[in-house]
Amino acid sequence: MAFTEQAAGVSEQVAPQTKGFTLNHSMVRIKDPKITLDFYTRIFGMRLLRKLDFPEMSFSLYFLANLDEDASVPSDTADRNQWTFSQRGLLELTHNWGTEDDADFHYHNGNAQPQGYGHICFAVPDLSAAVEWFDANNVEFVKRPEQGKMRDVAFVKDPDGYWIEIVQPDLCRSLGL
Amino acid sequence: MAFTEQAAGVSEQVAPQTKGFTLNHSMVRIKDPKITLDFYTRIFGMRLLRKLDFPEMSFSLYFLANLDEDASVPSDTADRNQWTFSQRGLLELTHNWGTEDDADFHYHNGNAQPQGYGHICFAVPDLSAAVEWFDANNVEFVKRPEQGKMRDVAFVKDPDGYWIEIVQPDLCRSLGL
Repeated sequence: MAFTEQAAGVSEQVAPQTKGFTLNHSMVRIKDPKITLDFYTRIFGMRLLRKLDFPEMSFSLYFLANLDEDASVPSDTADRNQWTFSQRGLLELTHNWGTEDDADFHYHNGNAQPQGYGHICFAVPDLSAAVEWFDANNVEFVKRPEQGKMRDVAFVKDPDGYWIEIVQPDLCRSLGL
Repeated sequence: MAFTEQAAGVSEQVAPQTKGFTLNHSMVRIKDPKITLDFYTRIFGMRLLRKLDFPEMSFSLYFLANLDEDASVPSDTADRNQWTFSQRGLLELTHNWGTEDDADFHYHNGNAQPQGYGHICFAVPDLSAAVEWFDANNVEFVKRPEQGKMRDVAFVKDPDGYWIEIVQPDLCRSLGL
């Protein structure tokens, strides 16, 4: 039987109808792809797997991931579409054309009211080195590791104000214990 | 050099300071864990990797993933904390205690105004079979595959009204081409 912790509501069995279900991506809308792609590719080391343009609906989608050095990415675009949608844990950015030219336009980050969405989280091998790297790149912090009740956890903001949690897995061993 | 598509803003190089960065999870707040855990574990086949309780701040965190049948999950909770935060593409649910007892309480799904967050997306091996499974479990659809401009893509709602996109990767080969 597949592992699971127990909690009220948790199904002990995995239904065969869910075999192969994969959490492919999480999507947020962004105002200006030039600024946000720079942020996620240069400062977070992500790669742009696919950019999909829908001119008839005036929007573009960007699919990003941190790739292993030996990742084998299909060069054919149709093959790469299929490959991209088969991956696990991508970031999808949606750009509705023209928002970047409206000085007053901004998206809602889900942490201000009305609340809902919270954040994405990156695991990093060395939290202190990551903090140094973010400072060197003028990344805005919501919470530095030494602030607040949850030590060893940082939060930064992306260009649209969405929160990004930063954790170092071996520093999370005692979290909640 | 690591693969990337080109687009304005995309960094060609992967900075060495980002080595090991991993998109660990995406977080949304939920009203009632009993209802939402049933939804994601029974209907989407996810497993609860860790539940972390923070009584002093009156909230709990739930980390979920679809596991491979041969996944080796550490039994020790501290080991499993570290393992959980090392994974890629998890779903984190935050439950602020007491919201489930307030009939009028609800979270904002990011697609109604004010917009921001959009959805998570599951890849499934057989979209038609998945639709049948969701119908059999009374899952609410935002868009069935045959509705709207983007055929072969469905959207359903989770118990809090957050959108979940459903795709079958080989049906996405021509998307945006």
